[in-house]
Amino acid sequence: MIFVVGHKNPDTDSICSAIAYAELKRSLGVDAMAARQGEINPETAFVLEKFGVHVPELVTEWEGKKVILVDHSDVSQSIDNIDRAEIVEIIDHHKIGDITTPNPIFFLAMPVGCTATVVKLLYDYHNIPIPKKIAGILLSAILSDTVIFKSPTTTEKDIKAAEDLARIAGVTDMNTFGIQVKSKLSDIDRMSAEEIIKRDFKDFNMSGNRVGIGQVELVDLSAIEPRIDEILSKMSEMKNNEGYAGIYMMLTDIIKEGTLLLAVVDSDSVVEKAFGTKLENNRVWLDKVMSRKKEIVPPLEEAYSS
Amino acid sequence: MIFVVGHKNPDTDSICSAIAYAELKRSLGVDAMAARQGEINPETAFVLEKFGVHVPELVTEWEGKKVILVDHSDVSQSIDNIDRAEIVEIIDHHKIGDITTPNPIFFLAMPVGCTATVVKLLYDYHNIPIPKKIAGILLSAILSDTVIFKSPTTTEKDIKAAEDLARIAGVTDMNTFGIQVKSKLSDIDRMSAEEIIKRDFKDFNMSGNRVGIGQVELVDLSAIEPRIDEILSKMSEMKNNEGYAGIYMMLTDIIKEGTLLLAVVDSDSVVEKAFGTKLENNRVWLDKVMSRKKEIVPPLEEAYSS
Repeated sequence: MIFVVGHKNPDTDSICSAIAYAELKRSLGVDAMAARQGEINPETAFVLEKFGVHVPELVTEWEGKKVILVDHSDVSQSIDNIDRAEIVEIIDHHKIGDITTPNPIFFLAMPVGCTATVVKLLYDYHNIPIPKKIAGILLSAILSDTVIFKSPTTTEKDIKAAEDLARIAGVTDMNTFGIQVKSKLSDIDRMSAEEIIKRDFKDFNMSGNRVGIGQVELVDLSAIEPRIDEILSKMSEMKNNEGYAGIYMMLTDIIKEGTLLLAVVDSDSVVEKAFGTKLENNRVWLDKVMSRKKEIVPPLEEAYSS
Repeated sequence: MIFVVGHKNPDTDSICSAIAYAELKRSLGVDAMAARQGEINPETAFVLEKFGVHVPELVTEWEGKKVILVDHSDVSQSIDNIDRAEIVEIIDHHKIGDITTPNPIFFLAMPVGCTATVVKLLYDYHNIPIPKKIAGILLSAILSDTVIFKSPTTTEKDIKAAEDLARIAGVTDMNTFGIQVKSKLSDIDRMSAEEIIKRDFKDFNMSGNRVGIGQVELVDLSAIEPRIDEILSKMSEMKNNEGYAGIYMMLTDIIKEGTLLLAVVDSDSVVEKAFGTKLENNRVWLDKVMSRKKEIVPPLEEAYSS
């Protein structure tokens, strides 16, 4: 049995790509099942329910298991004790991370907006028809990860894949469906500051510095503005207790197309170096910035390395 | 301009895959050229001359260049000052190495016998016809890397690719042509011990230990037997001067199908742990063992990590 699993703090892409790729492997005669490393978020729950797909099994013990990783290639985001599992494939769309293997494996990363796009292309490559419900969850993952094609990570391949998938899934208006999907994550009223920070939070090692970057995407920032002081104070606490050099929180406005970046850092200069703008009260507005992967991580890596 | 380059101490696969992939990128409208990191060996020279293909340009200064890496994903085998170049793609067939990138890129590794097989599949994927001389050098790389399909790294995909390429290149007897290609590397009479060791020599970081592993493949070991003491003494000298935990030299017999492994190591026990057999006079015969990547590196990594 091979387990297919996405990154820690799974988002819709990590869950849906794992399900869809496990299904593809089964179509190719491989005994595979999807798994997850943590709780699914409300957006993913909505998507799975809408298309009638089961939530993957939660797996926390990986020793001795054969594993296909999707949607990440960084040790810090991957399964615990990765050295004691056997990584047999990696399918991703992020920067190339620090996972290494003792043997040759199939590793496919593409610079596209979503792992689901890569999975869709692999269905096509193997000439396997995509089941309707699988098309629905892959489409949802693309709309979510590309912020309905507004993120600069979006490529022609994502749009083409989404169009094909929408046709199979019977989704006629991708924009309306996309806003419906994304709005499920705007439901922050009943969440604690810690839950808001950690729902989509990733750890990075930048030139030896532990850096954490969270993101929430909202249809409108007014819902979160009264919570910012509370969120900053939680970020400070996390930074002090967990040995971070910096904690960043992206409050991304889907309609206005930009991000209010909150930062709790050892020195403000790293933010100025990365983004060319000064922090004021631990915050800075970054116009047009939507993507952690493409617009926040690379300049921060650059700033921490210099 | 994008440079396509294989690993240090280039073998036929690293040179021919770089040439063929640069040609494919140009067919796709990308301004690309093949490069090399060092001198080509007599086998590669024979192959390029036979099919009328120019030797790629030697490049030693990589700062600021855009680079596609083929046939490796390990920093130690890659271009100097890799952090100051921009890696835009990686095409490989080895274990996943420690190269990371700040941005998402196209990374395709497949567990097949040769990078040339991956390049051939990419021509097919893009529906680009393979020019006759490119087919000839890709075929040569496959025959070389898989030791005419005798290496355990050989897969169905390599054999199928080679058959297609032989048809295009007009090679009717792959076995005879393969022996002709491989015999070019048996010409060790005029080489110094150091040249024999370093012609196809790779550096590895195994749990913090610097380990070097060279290989020569010969139609028959009798030509090299009188040189073994001289080779061992050079290996000792390299080990002492260059901070290696171990230097290994594979003398691989293509016809007998096995490898006489020479080892100069801190402690003999690592060899016994890895291969289940004791070193005698710094050597051990490993029956059926043909592949550094598949049969030498993984057990050594395991032995050094325990």
